[in-house]
Amino acid sequence: MDKENTPDKLEGIIVPMVTPLLSNGELDKKGTERLIRHLTHGGVYGIFILGTTGEASSLKTALKKELIEITCKETQGQHLVLVGITHTAIDVSLKIAKIAKDNGAGAVVAAPPYYFYLDQDDLFKYYIKLADLVPLPLFLYNFPIMTKNTIEPETAQKLSRHPNIIGIKDSSGNGVYFQKLLAIKTEKPDFSVMIGPEEMLAQSVLSGGDGGVNGGANIFPSLYVRLFEAAMNRDIDLVNKIQPLILEISKNIYGCSPKTSSYLCGVKESLYYLGICEPHIAPPLQSVDAKAKETIVQNLEKIIFKIKSI
Amino acid sequence: MDKENTPDKLEGIIVPMVTPLLSNGELDKKGTERLIRHLTHGGVYGIFILGTTGEASSLKTALKKELIEITCKETQGQHLVLVGITHTAIDVSLKIAKIAKDNGAGAVVAAPPYYFYLDQDDLFKYYIKLADLVPLPLFLYNFPIMTKNTIEPETAQKLSRHPNIIGIKDSSGNGVYFQKLLAIKTEKPDFSVMIGPEEMLAQSVLSGGDGGVNGGANIFPSLYVRLFEAAMNRDIDLVNKIQPLILEISKNIYGCSPKTSSYLCGVKESLYYLGICEPHIAPPLQSVDAKAKETIVQNLEKIIFKIKSI
Amino acid sequence: MDKENTPDKLEGIIVPMVTPLLSNGELDKKGTERLIRHLTHGGVYGIFILGTTGEASSLKTALKKELIEITCKETQGQHLVLVGITHTAIDVSLKIAKIAKDNGAGAVVAAPPYYFYLDQDDLFKYYIKLADLVPLPLFLYNFPIMTKNTIEPETAQKLSRHPNIIGIKDSSGNGVYFQKLLAIKTEKPDFSVMIGPEEMLAQSVLSGGDGGVNGGANIFPSLYVRLFEAAMNRDIDLVNKIQPLILEISKNIYGCSPKTSSYLCGVKESLYYLGICEPHIAPPLQSVDAKAKETIVQNLEKIIFKIKSI
Amino acid sequence: MDKENTPDKLEGIIVPMVTPLLSNGELDKKGTERLIRHLTHGGVYGIFILGTTGEASSLKTALKKELIEITCKETQGQHLVLVGITHTAIDVSLKIAKIAKDNGAGAVVAAPPYYFYLDQDDLFKYYIKLADLVPLPLFLYNFPIMTKNTIEPETAQKLSRHPNIIGIKDSSGNGVYFQKLLAIKTEKPDFSVMIGPEEMLAQSVLSGGDGGVNGGANIFPSLYVRLFEAAMNRDIDLVNKIQPLILEISKNIYGCSPKTSSYLCGVKESLYYLGICEPHIAPPLQSVDAKAKETIVQNLEKIIFKIKSI
Repeated sequence: MDKENTPDKLEGIIVPMVTPLLSNGELDKKGTERLIRHLTHGGVYGIFILGTTGEASSLKTALKKELIEITCKETQGQHLVLVGITHTAIDVSLKIAKIAKDNGAGAVVAAPPYYFYLDQDDLFKYYIKLADLVPLPLFLYNFPIMTKNTIEPETAQKLSRHPNIIGIKDSSGNGVYFQKLLAIKTEKPDFSVMIGPEEMLAQSVLSGGDGGVNGGANIFPSLYVRLFEAAMNRDIDLVNKIQPLILEISKNIYGCSPKTSSYLCGVKESLYYLGICEPHIAPPLQSVDAKAKETIVQNLEKIIFKIKSI
Repeated sequence: MDKENTPDKLEGIIVPMVTPLLSNGELDKKGTERLIRHLTHGGVYGIFILGTTGEASSLKTALKKELIEITCKETQGQHLVLVGITHTAIDVSLKIAKIAKDNGAGAVVAAPPYYFYLDQDDLFKYYIKLADLVPLPLFLYNFPIMTKNTIEPETAQKLSRHPNIIGIKDSSGNGVYFQKLLAIKTEKPDFSVMIGPEEMLAQSVLSGGDGGVNGGANIFPSLYVRLFEAAMNRDIDLVNKIQPLILEISKNIYGCSPKTSSYLCGVKESLYYLGICEPHIAPPLQSVDAKAKETIVQNLEKIIFKIKSI
Repeated sequence: MDKENTPDKLEGIIVPMVTPLLSNGELDKKGTERLIRHLTHGGVYGIFILGTTGEASSLKTALKKELIEITCKETQGQHLVLVGITHTAIDVSLKIAKIAKDNGAGAVVAAPPYYFYLDQDDLFKYYIKLADLVPLPLFLYNFPIMTKNTIEPETAQKLSRHPNIIGIKDSSGNGVYFQKLLAIKTEKPDFSVMIGPEEMLAQSVLSGGDGGVNGGANIFPSLYVRLFEAAMNRDIDLVNKIQPLILEISKNIYGCSPKTSSYLCGVKESLYYLGICEPHIAPPLQSVDAKAKETIVQNLEKIIFKIKSI
Repeated sequence: MDKENTPDKLEGIIVPMVTPLLSNGELDKKGTERLIRHLTHGGVYGIFILGTTGEASSLKTALKKELIEITCKETQGQHLVLVGITHTAIDVSLKIAKIAKDNGAGAVVAAPPYYFYLDQDDLFKYYIKLADLVPLPLFLYNFPIMTKNTIEPETAQKLSRHPNIIGIKDSSGNGVYFQKLLAIKTEKPDFSVMIGPEEMLAQSVLSGGDGGVNGGANIFPSLYVRLFEAAMNRDIDLVNKIQPLILEISKNIYGCSPKTSSYLCGVKESLYYLGICEPHIAPPLQSVDAKAKETIVQNLEKIIFKIKSI
């Protein structure tokens, strides 16, 4: 297996990058390039494209291919690129994985298939098959509220013994579950355990976690990098200064609308306001209304002001 | 819009056909042809390929295309062919719909996108867009336990006013919901309301429903046709003779294993035993164990014996 | 066991009676008496007090005792009185059952305990113990959305063999489940299987069910009795005339508010408008707002007008 | 309001005490006394009786009264006693609260009513009413998997402004939710935010939480006190020594059976093995089987051995 673009252990902030889209549904290529530069200048460790925040499930293969190409080209091997291959059909996952490999990405990420309910034996066999077949290191992704299927800690532990499975991102929000994942590191210290919900980033790192895959890092990459480093350095004072801002982003940027797209529009409208990329989202999601967009911008300005004073 | 292969109103038994697969994951073409002949000889009204029972979410596009071609060719325009286009990405749904149209299918079927949570406004706009763009009449498909998203009765009623939306299949199992769907027919009598769970077939038709999309019709097409006709004719005695068999199929063929694949394997193992097609299923589902397969066959023999005596 | 006040088989409309309350939370005794007369004049088969609609979980024992006394006294042994004894603590259930027996009630009704999750073995042993200890025939009550615990059909079948368990009310809304309950009658024909959701009353009786325990019968007892009888007589034309009114009551009386109390306030506000009893509800539920109350009354008037023309 | 037995701020380990029961269902009084001495000698901050672990929902009032009396008497005012008053009927909650006050308890604890679904407005009004009426400081208790109703962070924040509401125990396991609760302390620093699941104790205290209400402290009170203190002192090395034991207790003591009662039997069988109290549990829960009990004891011995070496 070729691991030339993959480090021994993933650690730090990995951005689950949004997919910039034009109003006609095609990729906003210029916006994508600007966004990648914004992220790499912000000091993030890696970029995870085609995840939930990347709206992967809503996009056609051709667009995914374009996005992979641009991202790998822009990062120039200086930053780890992880490519989401989550799909209900394993053949489709393998197809995307091959494109990722051909373009120089460093790893692939797969949440469980999300149509049928699966038991742990189904899930285990599925992941072993996937890990055997993908041409890049595989990162697990637990997100039961979306996929209905949970990768139980015992299953994750068994999977961690596969040489091609390098870590897990947990977006369940379940603190007990996350502690059980951390216990895998006793047996396999270089198995990366990363947190999805940014509200839990600091506490997860203080508990021994390896970093975060946090949506807000699209907007404020360096803020999340600083919080990660503060937690790594056990600088509790700095953690306590940044954590309220993280919660404010969660509440006032992501929570501006009761619509399902509220989080996604919060990130994309912020990036649009910052002049980075277009704000459009793909169906079946529909954008929040004009009033919510206005509130997002107002709240964003307040947060930018506060960040400057840290 | 071309409706030459689509009748004014769907009514009767539509089989949600399994997808016969070889052990290498490719389509079992000979088995597929035999299965289609088995179904049409059984007197079913139509064949619905690439639904949940058809494992659509687990299959690659090339295989779906082959299946559409064979099914349309074998039915020779004598039976309605409905093609499932359910997918999280609308572009992929449209691609399958075009293949269906090009091969002479009569309608397409779409459950809600199943990754993101959607509100009713999202769902409504999604379906209107889909109905505008697909080149065949569109049948709705409600299956919230799989898709997480319910097409609420009010939304279904609004969608029923779109000229290209011709009916709905409900697999929720919710009897209150189904009664509310039936109320749509007051406004639009030719809107077909069909039941998924076969245990509810008789009662749904007695209540005014238009028929069933029932998995067991893969094995025993004429039994389900007879039950449908008995209910249409209000022949309660005959209904009461057949209904216990339907429940026995449900309990003793589909319920032989605690695995998620229990229903699907119940159908496929039965067809294999009957010499119709191969029994393999696609990942991520895993087959039931050998003991369960044996029990399926034993129970099947008993049911076949009982059917003969009706 | 004394079954003098209990018939061999329950059949027809049993009203899950609301508990009329004064604004100070005490029982509205005069209203209760008027309500009971309203129901018995409407021709219902029995009265079920202290169920979900009766807000049993929100009431103290002293008030429950008063209600049992008044109901048993007012019905004067002419109508079956069923008393809800559902509670998380079996000792409390038994205490209420004894009060019911002492006042001449005919049966008790128990949904599963609703704090802990229970497996089917727990549930079975619980119900056997309860059936052994209560001094009146026991009616099962399945309502998983409230209690979290489902009485699976296999468990209900095993319980139906206990001489003191006489039937089951199903409020799950699940049509497949209900068909499986009906199958119990093959083995034990006098086991009563009744439907909770009134939208399913007609179809359940057409399928072989024994009647309904329907909240709307508080307002319009004779309407539900007529629908039951029409379905029993297979008078499909009359069923088709009444069923739209049932759906209209469901939509326009129960659905006037997004609040949890919408159904309960729909019933109680209607009874208040009809001069039968006070409309107050017990905490933790809070009433719908004034606008919703107004809408209830307006919609009620329309429904009363339509009922007259059947 | 009398707060003589309640400190300004709750902080540390509060044991959610099991209720020792005899085989006839009555209180094991001698066992209760031994258990209380075991806990107070272990250095816990307080004792919370009649919670979920205390099987409050399964017990009759007379037994609850006995338990309150013994606990208040045994602790002799040296340890805070919190009494669970969670019930679906507010009158019943108030009755228990009065008994608690009369016996000298320091606070009462209430989870949301758990039969009806409640919106946040219902919940807010319910808790304000309860806080106004109870004669002791009120501690909130969030446990949505049991009660179905979540106290949303915004609601908890509003409730924290009531002078008689002193804190919240969160058993949701949701790490994002817990971080949002901690944010309440910015406005009201003496509002206690405590964690239920012991797997999260260390990380919650490292994040600024005030302590834990952890079931395992019934067995090993001093171990949980040491973990709490290590986290308070930011002694990460000691935390890292104890945390694996906490996870081992969770996995090997609580997880010995698939039955719902597995956690509760894990605690009670351990206490029985240690000679502290009888192991019986109240219906509707049923005990784990003999093999599971044996495994609990074997695993307990291993853990005791490991604890000695810390």
